[in-house]
Amino acid sequence: MSKEVLSDSDGIRSAAPLKHARSVTFDRPLALELGGELPCVTVVYETYGRLSEAKDNAVLICHALSGDSHVARHDAQDEPGWWDTSEVVGPGRPIDTDRYFVVSPNVLGGCRGTTGPNSINPATGRPYGRDFPTITVADMVAVQGMLIDHLGIEKLLAVVGGSMGGHQVLDWATRYPERVRGAVAIATSTRLSSQALAFDVVGRNAILHDPNYRNGQYYDQDTGPSVGLAVARMIGHITYLSREAMKEKFDADRLAPRDVSTEFEKTFSVGSYLGYQGAKFVERFDANSYLALSMAMDLFKLGDSPGELAEKFAASQACWLVLSFTSDWLFAPQESQEIVDALIAADKPITYCNIESSCGHDAFLLPGDLESYGELISGFLANLDGRDTPDVTAGAARGGHSPTSIFHPDHPQRLDYDRIAELIAPGASVLDLGCGIGELPALLKDRGHERIMGLELDERAVIACVRRGLNVIQADLNDGLSSFADKQFDCVVLSQTLQAVRDVEGVVREMLRVGRQCVVSFPNFAYHKLRRMLFEQGRAPEAVGMLRHKWYNTPNIRFFSILDFEEFCALRGVTIHRRVALDTEAGCEVNDDPNCNADLAIFVISR
Amino acid sequence: MSKEVLSDSDGIRSAAPLKHARSVTFDRPLALELGGELPCVTVVYETYGRLSEAKDNAVLICHALSGDSHVARHDAQDEPGWWDTSEVVGPGRPIDTDRYFVVSPNVLGGCRGTTGPNSINPATGRPYGRDFPTITVADMVAVQGMLIDHLGIEKLLAVVGGSMGGHQVLDWATRYPERVRGAVAIATSTRLSSQALAFDVVGRNAILHDPNYRNGQYYDQDTGPSVGLAVARMIGHITYLSREAMKEKFDADRLAPRDVSTEFEKTFSVGSYLGYQGAKFVERFDANSYLALSMAMDLFKLGDSPGELAEKFAASQACWLVLSFTSDWLFAPQESQEIVDALIAADKPITYCNIESSCGHDAFLLPGDLESYGELISGFLANLDGRDTPDVTAGAARGGHSPTSIFHPDHPQRLDYDRIAELIAPGASVLDLGCGIGELPALLKDRGHERIMGLELDERAVIACVRRGLNVIQADLNDGLSSFADKQFDCVVLSQTLQAVRDVEGVVREMLRVGRQCVVSFPNFAYHKLRRMLFEQGRAPEAVGMLRHKWYNTPNIRFFSILDFEEFCALRGVTIHRRVALDTEAGCEVNDDPNCNADLAIFVISR
Repeated sequence: MSKEVLSDSDGIRSAAPLKHARSVTFDRPLALELGGELPCVTVVYETYGRLSEAKDNAVLICHALSGDSHVARHDAQDEPGWWDTSEVVGPGRPIDTDRYFVVSPNVLGGCRGTTGPNSINPATGRPYGRDFPTITVADMVAVQGMLIDHLGIEKLLAVVGGSMGGHQVLDWATRYPERVRGAVAIATSTRLSSQALAFDVVGRNAILHDPNYRNGQYYDQDTGPSVGLAVARMIGHITYLSREAMKEKFDADRLAPRDVSTEFEKTFSVGSYLGYQGAKFVERFDANSYLALSMAMDLFKLGDSPGELAEKFAASQACWLVLSFTSDWLFAPQESQEIVDALIAADKPITYCNIESSCGHDAFLLPGDLESYGELISGFLANLDGRDTPDVTAGAARGGHSPTSIFHPDHPQRLDYDRIAELIAPGASVLDLGCGIGELPALLKDRGHERIMGLELDERAVIACVRRGLNVIQADLNDGLSSFADKQFDCVVLSQTLQAVRDVEGVVREMLRVGRQCVVSFPNFAYHKLRRMLFEQGRAPEAVGMLRHKWYNTPNIRFFSILDFEEFCALRGVTIHRRVALDTEAGCEVNDDPNCNADLAIFVISR
Repeated sequence: MSKEVLSDSDGIRSAAPLKHARSVTFDRPLALELGGELPCVTVVYETYGRLSEAKDNAVLICHALSGDSHVARHDAQDEPGWWDTSEVVGPGRPIDTDRYFVVSPNVLGGCRGTTGPNSINPATGRPYGRDFPTITVADMVAVQGMLIDHLGIEKLLAVVGGSMGGHQVLDWATRYPERVRGAVAIATSTRLSSQALAFDVVGRNAILHDPNYRNGQYYDQDTGPSVGLAVARMIGHITYLSREAMKEKFDADRLAPRDVSTEFEKTFSVGSYLGYQGAKFVERFDANSYLALSMAMDLFKLGDSPGELAEKFAASQACWLVLSFTSDWLFAPQESQEIVDALIAADKPITYCNIESSCGHDAFLLPGDLESYGELISGFLANLDGRDTPDVTAGAARGGHSPTSIFHPDHPQRLDYDRIAELIAPGASVLDLGCGIGELPALLKDRGHERIMGLELDERAVIACVRRGLNVIQADLNDGLSSFADKQFDCVVLSQTLQAVRDVEGVVREMLRVGRQCVVSFPNFAYHKLRRMLFEQGRAPEAVGMLRHKWYNTPNIRFFSILDFEEFCALRGVTIHRRVALDTEAGCEVNDDPNCNADLAIFVISR
């Protein structure tokens, strides 16, 4: 029996009392979003770390469907919390409890202490059961707001949550915009996909049609709807794991079931795993809570269209960190992208990373990708916190992850960036396409530009940008700039990248659409040394000082000259405002026959 | 209420008697693969078209989990069959009943006439129920074999099936290799993925734990395990649809449930659809059959490792057509690729296409992609049948889908191919990388080469190859040639493609590994006209006769000369056996200073 297989990826453990949990009861009616009210509400929560005197270091953590207030151990003897598998919360961890005051409540409708269907209905003296009113994510957030008031916190440093916890983050930052400085939305969506919804529907049908469900009043019976709840949980578990993760876990010994105690089918190893997970879940979770919370999640809708979403986000005063995972198919990256697009449309400070992972939706709960999402969260919080940003230039060389010039590697970068920075109007908003580890954005920040955004494909470079306090969107230039509106930026920069893109026309068209002005730099293929190499030697251009790439492995796939680019612009009605030609080897500007004497060109253009 | 939504993508209809079905009973015990036996077996089947005198035109169609013998209408008044939504079987259709004799049996373990759990157990006089022995795909195929014997057919022109039907195809072609001339395996696998297995397990758990299941003897009860079966069906339905398809179907009106009669949750449109599908399914399908067939599918395993699979396929005498669909996540393309790899390893004639589709696993039952899979099936059958292959060169120009030279478009192709064909030893086995619509393979076929295989990325080109009677694998060169063994071919050809690949080193390394000899042709970038253009005009090479591509949109992304390639080979210990230099504009071979005077080079190389 593999221990790992039976470990509880989303924090299953016995439903023993949570010894560090506190609770507060609000003895007044709570009106609910969809009508009806709860006569009083109890919230169970746990806290970690200390609230600063200024009360400005509170981080609210919102849990997912099956979580609770116990996000992390309080001490070595304590039971592990649901985010402890990946060690996210604690002293020195990404959400550093030496620095932040973490508040982690059980959600409204839950079954671990906060008012939910298994709470006593004061009107009847029996558990609410099926009489528990339909609640929404907004209701959950309203209750969390009451708790935060109770704790004397006016403004949260950040609200953090994944999956259904992410829904709460979206709701928080748009419902109480003045109370949230940072919003961290992980593996979530503005509304569930129809596929995710479908799985929830089937799970609820299994519970509701379990004869032991007894219309929700099973609390005084020997047996509850344990088969229905277990089936719902089994379905859920499949959706939390990626195809690859299941393959890795179960393919090798598919016909060797784990030796677990379960009444469910055990022919296959994956069956024994699911049966075990289903059976264990029933011991710690209430079926009515499952119904209430999954329905709240299914009803969650920040908006239907990109326009509605952008409108919703308009009020947000928060900085945003949106994270998704490449193999998550329950809350697919595309759904996070919709959040990102709407935040961009609403002109909010936003960083997005689609983390390369094979772990599926559960990735944010597992240690495998902690190196990425942990660093992103800690970097993001540190920026909110105003801590000094560490120097990242030493650690990551630009050459390693971002297309670079075929030219001399020692000094052109600097010259290029300085000249570009000079060409941008003071204070202009800037979008830097292919920003690498953020050298140019950092330079512009130093020069006083305030609205700067980077676009970068490489995950490590995105992390480096975040640690530098820059807003960066992980994206592939070749996919276009559909996230951005016409003329959204004063200036769009594409430095030493055009020669490496496949869809040159598309990229140029898109940048001209998004930027009032654009700055493009590229190597000049008609530079005399290159010409001579081909003409005299009959060899692909490659010489001393330009040796970094061979014809067969250069990232540069488009070869063109200053003249070619000028013709390209002329044919498309693109206005050229400035042309700066450089000889980067000599480190000087070229005025005489630039198409022959310059190895690098910078153009300022517009449509 | 949308009619489309309630249409039955996998052939749901009322369980009325099948009026065109015939049956045969084999009154002798059938020993089963996993032990036990059935005392007698009845097979219900339908036939379409006429068996030829030579009895060489029979096509056996194997249905999937919920199908039956009624694959298609017999006449205009008849009810639609399960493959009628996409009009695959019938006069003039891809499986043309004017030409072929189609045999379509209900599978062993089914519930539409062929012996299954709802059949009377002669030993007890009651339905088998849970006493029905565990059957396998091999048992299904054995019974189909008895039927084929009964019909007097020695050798099938083809066995065709998708999903679980594909499992039967794989079993047929390896169990009775001498009886199958063509095998068409659609959207299937050598064994289920752990994810697919997991969904089946949950479905079975829902049935088995439905209190109305009564250990399988519910036939004389008012109610069977209808909730469990409906839940299993709902889960199945989600897995048959792609994420995109569900989005398209349900996203727009997610909170507007269809007005259908169902006891299941109807809050969401997708819920009403699933509830309806679940409820309808229960009316026409037997829960014990669902258990028996899904378990047979789950137990199916052609082999565990690539080696085992290749061994299994070694005996096959069939030509193969393997089809998958890009958005199928239940039987993912990667799983078809495993079949393909094993068939390649076993050196079998095989064509593979991963059809671009948004329809998910159901794609093979839907009309959306019929244009592709219908053409592939009809072309494949026509080749087996020995019909004249239609001329396809007129319809599809090579330039439209496959990278071509930057050179003069009017006559180089011909010259190139002729010279390449002359360079290949007579009778050699040939793998043509990036074969387009199959011009070179067709030329080689005319010259008497027998073992020829093409590799091509473009779907339309793959179809053109199939219509030409060529074996072609749809694949992206940049992904390498891992399907192929070391020295598997006498000759590997890469004509006018090297300049368009990203991973030059990888592609060359792979072709040298797979071919005893390799023929590579590419444009010579040091051709004097190109040199002069850059040197004298300072422009990216582009002149009269070479105008087809601009620097910003050429498919050619690697620029190198004959000298560059020779150096590349020398540094890697690659032996150059021959070099042919051509001036394709003049239409002649170049002997004097080829690096300057040739615009196209052909090399014969080996490791």
